[in-house]
Amino acid sequence: MEPLITLERAELEREYSQALSEYERFKSLGLKLDMSRGKPSNAQLDLSMELASMAFTAQECVSAGVEARNYGAIDGLPACKELFADILGVKPNQVFCGGNASLTLMYDTITKAYTHGLLHSPRPWHELGQLKFLCPVPGYDRHFAICEAYGIEMIPVPMTDYGPDMDVVERLIADPAVKGMWCVPKFSNPSGIVYSNETIARIAAMKPAAPDFVLMWDNAYCIHEIEGEYIDIPDILELCERHGNADMVFEFCSTSKVTFPGSGVACFACSEANMAYMKKLLSAQVISYDKMNQLRHVRFLRNREGALAHMKKHAAILADKFDVVISLLDERVAPLGIASYHRPKGGYFISLYVMRGCAKRVHQLMKDAGIVMTSAGATFPYGLDPEDSNLRLAPSFPPVDELRQATEALCCCIKLAALEKLLAR
Amino acid sequence: MEPLITLERAELEREYSQALSEYERFKSLGLKLDMSRGKPSNAQLDLSMELASMAFTAQECVSAGVEARNYGAIDGLPACKELFADILGVKPNQVFCGGNASLTLMYDTITKAYTHGLLHSPRPWHELGQLKFLCPVPGYDRHFAICEAYGIEMIPVPMTDYGPDMDVVERLIADPAVKGMWCVPKFSNPSGIVYSNETIARIAAMKPAAPDFVLMWDNAYCIHEIEGEYIDIPDILELCERHGNADMVFEFCSTSKVTFPGSGVACFACSEANMAYMKKLLSAQVISYDKMNQLRHVRFLRNREGALAHMKKHAAILADKFDVVISLLDERVAPLGIASYHRPKGGYFISLYVMRGCAKRVHQLMKDAGIVMTSAGATFPYGLDPEDSNLRLAPSFPPVDELRQATEALCCCIKLAALEKLLAR
Repeated sequence: MEPLITLERAELEREYSQALSEYERFKSLGLKLDMSRGKPSNAQLDLSMELASMAFTAQECVSAGVEARNYGAIDGLPACKELFADILGVKPNQVFCGGNASLTLMYDTITKAYTHGLLHSPRPWHELGQLKFLCPVPGYDRHFAICEAYGIEMIPVPMTDYGPDMDVVERLIADPAVKGMWCVPKFSNPSGIVYSNETIARIAAMKPAAPDFVLMWDNAYCIHEIEGEYIDIPDILELCERHGNADMVFEFCSTSKVTFPGSGVACFACSEANMAYMKKLLSAQVISYDKMNQLRHVRFLRNREGALAHMKKHAAILADKFDVVISLLDERVAPLGIASYHRPKGGYFISLYVMRGCAKRVHQLMKDAGIVMTSAGATFPYGLDPEDSNLRLAPSFPPVDELRQATEALCCCIKLAALEKLLAR
Repeated sequence: MEPLITLERAELEREYSQALSEYERFKSLGLKLDMSRGKPSNAQLDLSMELASMAFTAQECVSAGVEARNYGAIDGLPACKELFADILGVKPNQVFCGGNASLTLMYDTITKAYTHGLLHSPRPWHELGQLKFLCPVPGYDRHFAICEAYGIEMIPVPMTDYGPDMDVVERLIADPAVKGMWCVPKFSNPSGIVYSNETIARIAAMKPAAPDFVLMWDNAYCIHEIEGEYIDIPDILELCERHGNADMVFEFCSTSKVTFPGSGVACFACSEANMAYMKKLLSAQVISYDKMNQLRHVRFLRNREGALAHMKKHAAILADKFDVVISLLDERVAPLGIASYHRPKGGYFISLYVMRGCAKRVHQLMKDAGIVMTSAGATFPYGLDPEDSNLRLAPSFPPVDELRQATEALCCCIKLAALEKLLAR
């Protein structure tokens, strides 16, 4: 196999007809596969079945003097605050344990900014004019959906291999209408990269013009290594505080991809001043979150060490799946010079760049062959990928056999779309 | 004992010094009692321990084709929608199962009205001028706190023995700034009364001037009989629909006072059009709520019949406590003609009216004796009881012995406050 770019037209035509007949073969299989969302597989869910059969006596429902079964303790069981503090490397009093979804905590944080303002907001955001948010791209579509829900203009910021391009960020935050930035610092969604310590230090030291600029630090994959040793990233809360930015950051995480998605525990971590401010606003919304589920998670995961040991079991399952996708891409697509991608060391996604102008076409070809992928463009604000080249692959959910079949079809579609483009010139 | 009002000054003074020395005796006991919140007691929590030791196989986590452990089904497990539909007497497709707290669902509903508007809002509420909400009084302080969070002006509406005074309501809703009304139709918080069918029919037939008027139907005590047979109230959704008001109402309930408060399941029920509208807005906030907990509740409660059988066990515990309070009031306070109250047939509270201008004083006397009660005024918007006479008693949480002691002290404080007032004339 040679890079397609080196081929003569007649050779391209030959390649095209081969690719087309291979594609038709896939289509004739009547597949129904889904590699669209970062959902853990059933095998991964089975790792946490202890949570589905845990027994507590009435006495065991009391934790550090707090009755888990009854109302109370809006910020969660002390033991659960300690668990998350240990995982995130923050202090227990910086942790607010919420319900089952960090997405909800993130949405609620932006909602409170909109309705009431954040701690340092001169006025609620709805009273201000057009607001803007920095969105490193490619990024996470559900972050973008929150901004869209509030009409916040999203400014794409290019991602480097070390995190968001901080030269761009530092220029943009001079605009007081820029109210915040989304970050997935570890195993970024979808690129899988880990922000470098230098990038994180620059982020913590930012001097945004907006007094209520909020760093939405979505540490979704904080313990989600697939291969290699645990990667420690700096405690953003401590770093921000050191730079006089203690109240600039909210960090989020959850056990959605540790135990059961949708039945896990989520938390945010922030400065004491932010905590006091948010607890006051939250007191109109909730008396307390599900402390029984917090108790289950404390018993099951124990501490960072326990959580990391548990994550090794996830890694073993996920590594096989990432292997399937990467080795097929390495074998069938890489030599053609029509796509690029990294092999991530953790997280849930592979960020694939196909030939410019071909991502939507690849998505459509896959769909026509019965395989659902994340929409082309989903990794960009408003679904607009200016180069129409990025696709997010989510290998976790399908069984290995189906994943192999889907990826074989994907390789074929990438090639077919590229050949269509090259031949149309 | 005679009504205090009939006594001569010298007799009043004698009564006063007796009451004072009795009060000093209570104070000297160094009590630390709490009858402030509607919290189930430990004995009640123990009734649901099956939930704390339930075991599911992986296979059992799949319910009607939905994997409870994974993401998905934003409106809840079909079986849980059926459970609540059965309890509320509505249709399963009208039910949205949420997280652990109906308070959160209510707060989120008003928040969405504020940020985005409701289905029939011409604009989001934050873009409109001063808004108003009807608050039957005495009422529930957490409802009032939601209005306060959004600067919504609260208009008190007197409660009758049959529900809100509908003559007043029908007059007030002619104002297009009146955007909604709070209702606890069964065993109202705190009065304990059940809205009559006639009142409910008038509510369903309202013709508010605001196109997006929202009836916040908090059916918190829908199966919470303490004595007597189950009381059926009309299905508000069906009644509203019949009067062309299908989209006017959101009904709320939860298992907070059925199983474990804070670890239960909450839901709202509404028209199909409202459901579609809210699901769209909610999709930016949440992927799905805790379906494992929904599954536990389905297995534990099964259906309305199962839930009612379970509630009989609560009733047995609660009836004793309400008996203690009511019989002490009957014995020690009623003959003095200085207080009024009903014996509720369900719910969590006794609404006590002491002599005008004495509620705060009684609260303070109790506090000084080491007994925490719900704040005087808490049952009115902004904490302002114009007559300073209503107190909400919450007998559920303390053990019977403590409750007796607290109520004895209460009877003494009611008498002491009344005598202070009569002697000050």
